[in-house]
Amino acid sequence: MTITGTTRLFGILGDPVAPLRSPALFNAAFARLGRDAVFVPLQVPAGALPTAWEGLTRLRNLEGLVITMPHKDAVIPLLQALGPTATLTGTVNTVRRRPEGGWEGEMFDGEGFRDGLERSGHAPRGASILQVGCGAAGRAIAFALARAGAARLTLRDAEAGRARQLAARLAEGWPELVVSTEADGPAGHDIVVNATPMGLRPEDPLPLDPAALSPRQVVADVIPNPEVTPLVAAARRIGCATVTGRAMHEGQARLAAAYLGIAGWEG
Amino acid sequence: MTITGTTRLFGILGDPVAPLRSPALFNAAFARLGRDAVFVPLQVPAGALPTAWEGLTRLRNLEGLVITMPHKDAVIPLLQALGPTATLTGTVNTVRRRPEGGWEGEMFDGEGFRDGLERSGHAPRGASILQVGCGAAGRAIAFALARAGAARLTLRDAEAGRARQLAARLAEGWPELVVSTEADGPAGHDIVVNATPMGLRPEDPLPLDPAALSPRQVVADVIPNPEVTPLVAAARRIGCATVTGRAMHEGQARLAAAYLGIAGWEG
Repeated sequence: MTITGTTRLFGILGDPVAPLRSPALFNAAFARLGRDAVFVPLQVPAGALPTAWEGLTRLRNLEGLVITMPHKDAVIPLLQALGPTATLTGTVNTVRRRPEGGWEGEMFDGEGFRDGLERSGHAPRGASILQVGCGAAGRAIAFALARAGAARLTLRDAEAGRARQLAARLAEGWPELVVSTEADGPAGHDIVVNATPMGLRPEDPLPLDPAALSPRQVVADVIPNPEVTPLVAAARRIGCATVTGRAMHEGQARLAAAYLGIAGWEG
Repeated sequence: MTITGTTRLFGILGDPVAPLRSPALFNAAFARLGRDAVFVPLQVPAGALPTAWEGLTRLRNLEGLVITMPHKDAVIPLLQALGPTATLTGTVNTVRRRPEGGWEGEMFDGEGFRDGLERSGHAPRGASILQVGCGAAGRAIAFALARAGAARLTLRDAEAGRARQLAARLAEGWPELVVSTEADGPAGHDIVVNATPMGLRPEDPLPLDPAALSPRQVVADVIPNPEVTPLVAAARRIGCATVTGRAMHEGQARLAAAYLGIAGWEG
């Protein structure tokens, strides 16, 4: 990859940025596709988003951005239009210029997770699923699981109100889905999902007690880096099939790339 | 070069950016030095500088910027401190973070030009020089030529007031330098300098009439791309030694890199 004055810019806006895998993934795709573009990490702390946004969007050679923690909710008021999943979840992970001016965003965390799960051979259709974590990514994942035909979805969150609020919206949109916020464990579920940030830092506590897992369950984690979180490692020791955050992240990137007009992503 | 979440950012802020050579030059140096950094073009139109600046400086992983047309003057009020040449010329081409917070800038266009001239074997010491163009780059070049011991400096500019103002400041700082703004041609000068942007676009008129050049003169141009401008091509046909904008640009980049803490630039 040779970066010159004509090279178009893409980036990922978040904080922290050091663990992010998107730059390597997108730049490898640009190299494969022979595209004169570069994808860079843009480290913007939480409170600085509006100012950083105003400035970055003045760059004429900036084509689009992936948005990650802690900006997935905060970017919404800065956009001129939202896609259907962004509207539904109130969160955005990819933004692009609109042909008529301004910027629009869509949310691919949920569909990326679903895509990763299916490509790993664990379709959510008809499954009973325990999901821990109902933040920005969690909301998107729950909607994607509902849309993909999950039979039963149990939601947990450290802020119980977030789980109940999400459950109410799911019950409204998918009346056949059995939604619960009961504080039960993994027992009886086919798929167990960590949608919290627990596992990003080595000192994080586990998002759920792995002692309650059984070998026939699938454990899926959203953390892309480290790929093998303590939860994934514990689940593997028990004999569970696992889907790491890498699969979700590759799914997200695939969908984000299509939204950003990067054709031929899969070679 | 692999760009990941830990990669530090540098860039060049200007408009247009397509003809700029800095990205290729800096990225080649980063690759050679094994440095986890990337240098990208940042296309910011004239009026958008203050907003773009506010936003870009919020990026925690941005280490420094090269500033080019049309922002070399406009960036001054946005900085917290200026180096000596920036103060003298009222222009800046490189900015970096200050350890105590905020940003500071310095101007290396003039010294970069002087460095390129000397490395090409044409030291300005004792020379009689005609310089066309007294804008941001031109001011810096004139001060660098004076500092390097030029004997006589004739200044021309499409805005005659800019030439007179610069001449007055030079006369004040270097009383032994013979400064003139007479509208004479290249005859009698050892070195003829184009410090205007003429030659950047194919449709530009020539900055001076090459018919008046003679083979013993050195013709130096500030335009780095195209490297061989119509002026340089005409001078070569006449038999003049030439110094292209590439030499100036490499000199600038060398000095800017040192200012930005990029050690080992020359390998």
